[in-house]
Amino acid sequence: VPTRLDLRILFDGDERLGPGKIRLLELIDAEGSISAAGRAMDMSYRRAWLLVESLNRGFREPAVEARPGGRHGGGTALTPFGRELVRRYRAMEAAAADAVADHLRFLEQRRPVADGE
Amino acid sequence: VPTRLDLRILFDGDERLGPGKIRLLELIDAEGSISAAGRAMDMSYRRAWLLVESLNRGFREPAVEARPGGRHGGGTALTPFGRELVRRYRAMEAAAADAVADHLRFLEQRRPVADGE
Repeated sequence: VPTRLDLRILFDGDERLGPGKIRLLELIDAEGSISAAGRAMDMSYRRAWLLVESLNRGFREPAVEARPGGRHGGGTALTPFGRELVRRYRAMEAAAADAVADHLRFLEQRRPVADGE
Repeated sequence: VPTRLDLRILFDGDERLGPGKIRLLELIDAEGSISAAGRAMDMSYRRAWLLVESLNRGFREPAVEARPGGRHGGGTALTPFGRELVRRYRAMEAAAADAVADHLRFLEQRRPVADGE
């Protein structure tokens, strides 16, 4: 496993945006349901739902919406703003990783030698 | 309170470096003691000590060392490597904040209007 950066944004007023919520949005996009996305993260439906609620209250536009559907119900989808959040967060991660690469290399070189190496 | 970035580095093998350990190092540097630094962060001595242990095991060189002293004991100090860790982390924070500034501004503008604004 390579060294990873974990980037969290702490907004005034307590809303946080970090890798967990972003991964949940990506999985909702892929699975079309909050419960399936939560399951894929080993998260209870309640916890996944609370994270979605927090995201939807955290910005002027919702990130996730119910999609009315046919006979089997419509499931859940990202809004255009939800996709924008994911895209921006992943771009921020990449930009930050790039900006700190030299320092990360310095730190990695000072990690202990692992057993068996 | 302005928006803040919270940067954590996740090394291979589970060591993490984030704002809590760095703040603890800065306070050990200022206070000359693990217990005073922990107190300043509302942290038990045990928790502060465990974080220092984790830092000292996480790299080839220790970040914190006991400083043998006179009649009253010598207290605790950062090693040159400990200071380098703090300096590098703060530089990484600044570089990352700079790299993501445009995205942060976009997100801040989409936050809900606070009561009374």
